[in-house]
Amino acid sequence: MAYKENYPSALLSEAVEAIGSLPGVGRRSALRLALHLLKQPAENVHHFTGAIDALRDGVHYCSRCKMIADDEICSICSDPKRDQRTICVVESVRDVMSIEATGQYHGLYHVLGGIISPIAGVGPSDLTIKELVERVQALPEPETAEVILALSGDVEGETTAFYIYRQIEASGIRVSALARGLGFGDDLEYADSLTLGRSITNRQAFKV
Amino acid sequence: MAYKENYPSALLSEAVEAIGSLPGVGRRSALRLALHLLKQPAENVHHFTGAIDALRDGVHYCSRCKMIADDEICSICSDPKRDQRTICVVESVRDVMSIEATGQYHGLYHVLGGIISPIAGVGPSDLTIKELVERVQALPEPETAEVILALSGDVEGETTAFYIYRQIEASGIRVSALARGLGFGDDLEYADSLTLGRSITNRQAFKV
Repeated sequence: MAYKENYPSALLSEAVEAIGSLPGVGRRSALRLALHLLKQPAENVHHFTGAIDALRDGVHYCSRCKMIADDEICSICSDPKRDQRTICVVESVRDVMSIEATGQYHGLYHVLGGIISPIAGVGPSDLTIKELVERVQALPEPETAEVILALSGDVEGETTAFYIYRQIEASGIRVSALARGLGFGDDLEYADSLTLGRSITNRQAFKV
Repeated sequence: MAYKENYPSALLSEAVEAIGSLPGVGRRSALRLALHLLKQPAENVHHFTGAIDALRDGVHYCSRCKMIADDEICSICSDPKRDQRTICVVESVRDVMSIEATGQYHGLYHVLGGIISPIAGVGPSDLTIKELVERVQALPEPETAEVILALSGDVEGETTAFYIYRQIEASGIRVSALARGLGFGDDLEYADSLTLGRSITNRQAFKV
């Protein structure tokens, strides 16, 4: 082969390698994207790379809830119309966006930045649990406030929820968790038995 | 919604928009990739964007065959072991890479940079056909040289091949085209009738 590692140019080879390092982007797709970028006007490519650099270098995290923000305090924490006495604890920035997209929640958030996972080497101190405990302790009359643990239903999520519960139960704050059960439109026949079992145990009053 | 266009940060929104402008990358994937890049060390992200900028700003095209190159003349054109009297005409850089990957071709290339397509507004003057004609005319004893038209089998490819043939036939150079027929491993039953018909018309001597 005349090409070093099958690429006609070292610059192309390096760009393909960089693009191929993205999750879910294979080598063929990376080559396709690199050749696409090559065909674009230089200013478009600089706009593309500039937007990514600007995000990485300029991003802030809300000092209160650790959500991505453009300012010191994010737009949710600084919104006077949001219920300041309800804190929804989530794993990631993406979870906040998912819950916001439902339009059903009007309280604040707390982004843990991960989940307790001994296998992945993530312990409580790698997350923002300490900051959450401080937020809870700073709330006046905690009995009338609420923490919602909106974590995944797997072992890591349950472990993290239990750990957090232990840390904040002394404050007397109400702690709730997301409802688990059959999804809307789910077929009973195909539901896993754990979910179905919990759906029966946690059955709700029928509403018309 | 508390978020401008559903994003918690203008920087994130702009990065998602930039990444989502890539072909085949939807908004959800773009968000996933943006959040992935946010989690990487800043130097990795700068390496990523730097490789793309370096490709776009630093890329050369071989002055002879118009292939991507690191130098004035590409590694194929400057290889004395390649047959300098056979020119394989292809649409794109990618086609050169595909043919090189076969290991079956040892001549030179000529990259058109596209294909004649009235619908897409691409005419002969948008391609490197003039440069190809000049290369052919500069060859001594053209009767013993060859141009291989390795273009797609669709209408645009056939049109482009015919246009090029008309431009170079006067030089007396041999002009050939890729063999068309059933692919290796193809099932006769599922072949389209045009391909099958051509396979019969252009049948080859049976070799053992």
